[in-house]
Amino acid sequence: MAAFVTIVGEARVLTDESACEQYGLDWTRFYAPDPSAVLLPGSIEEVQDIVRLAAKHKLAIVPSGGRTGLSAGAVAANGELVLALDRLNTISDFNPVDRTVRCGAGVITEQLQQFAEEQDLYYPVDFASAGSSQIGGNIATNAGGIKVIKHGMTRDWVAGLKLVTGTGELLDLNRGLMKNNAGYDLRQLAIGAEGTLGVVVEATMSLTRTPKNLAVLVLGAPDMQAIMHVLATFQSEIELSAFEFFSELALEKVVAHQDLPRPFETVCDYYALLEFEQPDDQAMDDAMRLFEHCMEQGWVYDGTVSQSLAQAQNLWRLREDISETITPWTPYKNDISTLIAKVPDFLAEVEAVVNKHYPNFEIVWFGHIGDGNVHLNILKPEDLPIDEFKIQCGEVSTWVFEIVQRYGGSVSAEHGVGLLKKEYLEYSRSPVEIEMMRGIKKVFDPQGIMNPGKIFDL
Amino acid sequence: MAAFVTIVGEARVLTDESACEQYGLDWTRFYAPDPSAVLLPGSIEEVQDIVRLAAKHKLAIVPSGGRTGLSAGAVAANGELVLALDRLNTISDFNPVDRTVRCGAGVITEQLQQFAEEQDLYYPVDFASAGSSQIGGNIATNAGGIKVIKHGMTRDWVAGLKLVTGTGELLDLNRGLMKNNAGYDLRQLAIGAEGTLGVVVEATMSLTRTPKNLAVLVLGAPDMQAIMHVLATFQSEIELSAFEFFSELALEKVVAHQDLPRPFETVCDYYALLEFEQPDDQAMDDAMRLFEHCMEQGWVYDGTVSQSLAQAQNLWRLREDISETITPWTPYKNDISTLIAKVPDFLAEVEAVVNKHYPNFEIVWFGHIGDGNVHLNILKPEDLPIDEFKIQCGEVSTWVFEIVQRYGGSVSAEHGVGLLKKEYLEYSRSPVEIEMMRGIKKVFDPQGIMNPGKIFDL
Repeated sequence: MAAFVTIVGEARVLTDESACEQYGLDWTRFYAPDPSAVLLPGSIEEVQDIVRLAAKHKLAIVPSGGRTGLSAGAVAANGELVLALDRLNTISDFNPVDRTVRCGAGVITEQLQQFAEEQDLYYPVDFASAGSSQIGGNIATNAGGIKVIKHGMTRDWVAGLKLVTGTGELLDLNRGLMKNNAGYDLRQLAIGAEGTLGVVVEATMSLTRTPKNLAVLVLGAPDMQAIMHVLATFQSEIELSAFEFFSELALEKVVAHQDLPRPFETVCDYYALLEFEQPDDQAMDDAMRLFEHCMEQGWVYDGTVSQSLAQAQNLWRLREDISETITPWTPYKNDISTLIAKVPDFLAEVEAVVNKHYPNFEIVWFGHIGDGNVHLNILKPEDLPIDEFKIQCGEVSTWVFEIVQRYGGSVSAEHGVGLLKKEYLEYSRSPVEIEMMRGIKKVFDPQGIMNPGKIFDL
Repeated sequence: MAAFVTIVGEARVLTDESACEQYGLDWTRFYAPDPSAVLLPGSIEEVQDIVRLAAKHKLAIVPSGGRTGLSAGAVAANGELVLALDRLNTISDFNPVDRTVRCGAGVITEQLQQFAEEQDLYYPVDFASAGSSQIGGNIATNAGGIKVIKHGMTRDWVAGLKLVTGTGELLDLNRGLMKNNAGYDLRQLAIGAEGTLGVVVEATMSLTRTPKNLAVLVLGAPDMQAIMHVLATFQSEIELSAFEFFSELALEKVVAHQDLPRPFETVCDYYALLEFEQPDDQAMDDAMRLFEHCMEQGWVYDGTVSQSLAQAQNLWRLREDISETITPWTPYKNDISTLIAKVPDFLAEVEAVVNKHYPNFEIVWFGHIGDGNVHLNILKPEDLPIDEFKIQCGEVSTWVFEIVQRYGGSVSAEHGVGLLKKEYLEYSRSPVEIEMMRGIKKVFDPQGIMNPGKIFDL
């Protein structure tokens, strides 16, 4: 440790229990944290020095951001060094013409969103943990969220990326260019690699025009197929910035626990939340015409539209507060995706297998259905001990991933693989692909010190 | 060759001079074609069989699409086998909900654009060679074009990718999913790799909503800095689908040779062409207000707007016909990019160095300035022998790439590296990055048979 102290200073090498507990865990609560130390470098050079030293002694490193991940990508459970990027939190070099800005890896997502707002611009990647997740972590997991249908994933907003490889080399990838076809796009390879190819230390992030007057529409539908018709109908004419769904059970819980009014009286099996820009009156007229068409077709039973920003925010809460609402039931969570067109059949198959074996399990569905990403949540029955529930959920995972595989879907739509889904990776990726990932990792990290054991074993 | 005949049939193994000439060259005319044979497989399995056999005998393969490339990425000048994907030209599995469609690698860009139109959808990647370039080649070079400012590069439209690696393995990457964070995105790595990691045999391409009533505006400006102000002004309020520029010399040549009227009487140093959607009257009112603001500021001297589709097409010709127009001058061409904000200074530096050494060279500038990509064209003076012109242009290249390097730009914005820019790759990529590319290539292609010598030497 003395050598690390030389690099970052004594106050930046933490080994006390509380720091190890705090920095050794992410929002996945399945693993016991056990890092050997927490290092808090203050510059890219210090990161390079730490990695070089670790490589020399073959010490494993876990890069650490806001630790809001849900697949244990940032967990240090095996005596690793935690390399926390918190101090690299500067926003600089705003370029109004290119609409880009340089962010240290430790910049909080919300900090970037606010910075953009101050420039009358917009950073559109948004999700529940935006208040504590860091840009470096977002890039490492290619974070998605609620605006992907229009704005894509974090991947689409990284104009430049600085990565420290497993040998301590600094790669300065793409440097903010919008067009650059000079050789392999190593930037894209590093995005979503969950720190296994190196540490993201800095990024040049793209910003965009601020949306004009966002309107929110919540619609009730008889079944999932109807929801898909609603999606197709609106998407053919309107550029949606969100298309989310949730089930009646999800709505019930949110309304009961968050003191929110139901969007309308009619009880439906499923609900869709649509968001779109409303630069002028024409946009709402168009939306109302499409809404009426969906009513006539029997795809929609009822609906409500926001008349103000406050109302829009309240409608959003019906969807965004679900996760927090169901936390007391210690839910089993799974983040999966399939082709959008296959979602209804996919949900039906998952429900059927769960209901068949565990009829007492309550399933709460919600998610970003406009992009094929659903969040499966199973609430723990009150009388079932947590350990038994976990064992039964292990079985559920296998059934679910078998269905995912049959549908050609993904075992991780947006949360990454980390430790949590490592053993299921083969349901989405072929053995040859996994072997290639191992080969690529060796190129970036010949000693295998960068976040080892995440995504796949070496 | 007998073994290859067994795979694809005798009629699909071409060795005659005319076939070798035709299939051995792309639109870069600097190399003498010399393939050993041209193979025309009819299925993915046949491609795999060919690659396996070639790997066994360490025979080099050049994947071949529409051969419209401008960096000699598809040139076979060293006795390679040309693997032409022409017969894999089927469009199938249209999915209206996901708005995706499956394309064989040999599908022509225009064929996909027309297919999309028939479904009342839109494939937005467009460029001058869309009538003969193939989807597989577009993916291999990450083709850009005239709508990148809004719609991005080919990279952004590939929802799934089938790649045959250098060992003949078939990778089925991402399978059309919109969200998939299960392991490294090998799809993104293969896009733009110019066939050096494997052969693209099939892709699932995304389509989007058809733009409503596109309007085109051509504006004349006193200098490049003014053009940048125009870009910023319009982009702050309007979602532009194109922002192109060209110089007065470019306009003069086009008007004279294509029998087109000037857009307006005022002669300006530079012109910008803007395209945007006009769903209602409000959009044009906004554009006119911004136009007037630019006039008041002195950034624009004159302008004209399309009143009909025919007029819009004619205005586009002022930009799109430049390349063809200047062909008789056997121009030196270079496709480079920098940060958008740096374009004016960048252009000035390039002009200064060329004018200083070769005051008789005429420089024609045009390009996709909204994304920082400029095309430098130098016309051969009539009295200068072509060989001497080429030698002098070699000098120009070095000066230009030194400036590119100083600006942190790209030696190839959209045309790729191929053979043509291989020796200049280090002006945009560090030695460590190039070494990593070599390492990654070995993972996909351990024998080094896939398009060897392109992008970098092994």
